Amino acid sequence: MDFFEVVKNRKSVREYSTAEVKKDLIEKIIDAGRLSATARNEQPWEFVVTSDKKILKKICGMCPNGPFIKDASHLIAVFSKETKYYIEDCSAATQNMLLAIEALGLGGCWVAGDKKNYAEDIRKIFNAPDGYKLVSMITIGYPKKEEKPHAKRNLKDVLRWERYA
Amino acid sequence: MDFFEVVKNRKSVREYSTAEVKKDLIEKIIDAGRLSATARNEQPWEFVVTSDKKILKKICGMCPNGPFIKDASHLIAVFSKETKYYIEDCSAATQNMLLAIEALGLGGCWVAGDKKNYAEDIRKIFNAPDGYKLVSMITIGYPKKEEKPHAKRNLKDVLRWERYA
Repeated sequence: MDFFEVVKNRKSVREYSTAEVKKDLIEKIIDAGRLSATARNEQPWEFVVTSDKKILKKICGMCPNGPFIKDASHLIAVFSKETKYYIEDCSAATQNMLLAIEALGLGGCWVAGDKKNYAEDIRKIFNAPDGYKLVSMITIGYPKKEEKPHAKRNLKDVLRWERYA
Repeated sequence: MDFFEVVKNRKSVREYSTAEVKKDLIEKIIDAGRLSATARNEQPWEFVVTSDKKILKKICGMCPNGPFIKDASHLIAVFSKETKYYIEDCSAATQNMLLAIEALGLGGCWVAGDKKNYAEDIRKIFNAPDGYKLVSMITIGYPKKEEKPHAKRNLKDVLRWERYA
């Protein structure tokens, strides 16, 4: 898969077929995550993957913005030691994984973790160590239908040469 | 460029040749940034690019971790409105741009912005609006020599199935 095609085609996919995603594909996704940029090469991240329908339903019920979580084949929870740049590092890793999901012909969606009131309860569900932070969750499944990327601000609207006028 | 090859080969490059990077390549990099994941599709980011040697030297002198900034062909400063998830969004965009840099055969390095004491002074250099946050900077240039990715924690050390033991 061509890199720039993957970047262009990546989108949030919230509707999944009932097909299960194979373990080796999940590993390829996590592999992309662990190779992302990280400040001072600290790699503070830990990735916990579940495909347990009971857990998916439980988490689904806790996340007002995630009514689709119960329909996913898998969910990756991204936890981190609380380093100075843990949000930056784990967000970079999350983006890498979302791109990998697209590259593999799968669909995924980023669900917020950090700053959410359910973060600590989800840490307990996965038995992550005290003090670890939930930064994000990613749902994964086979897309139920073809979807287009969301509209984005144009290049000319986000890019400035040299400085703001 | 194959997506997974780009992910595997991406690394921080801090030594650059004196060759200038063409404008259309810079635009391809920013294009990857603006297409990244963003909470609620807010896209709070703004990208300011400079290749002004005086500005590069000035910023270089302000950043203890960026002695290489003065040698870069270009620097992208990633600014953001202060939304709830601005660090997540702009870190995802930064990762997309670092991958694009690798895909184009260029070298780049993430320089921290948010939480740095120089962030506000750099905002002023670029005349970004009051209240905007500097999240990251990216240096870009042609690599001076071939470099290998940094060693990373192994997949088995960062991945857990179902939950922590």
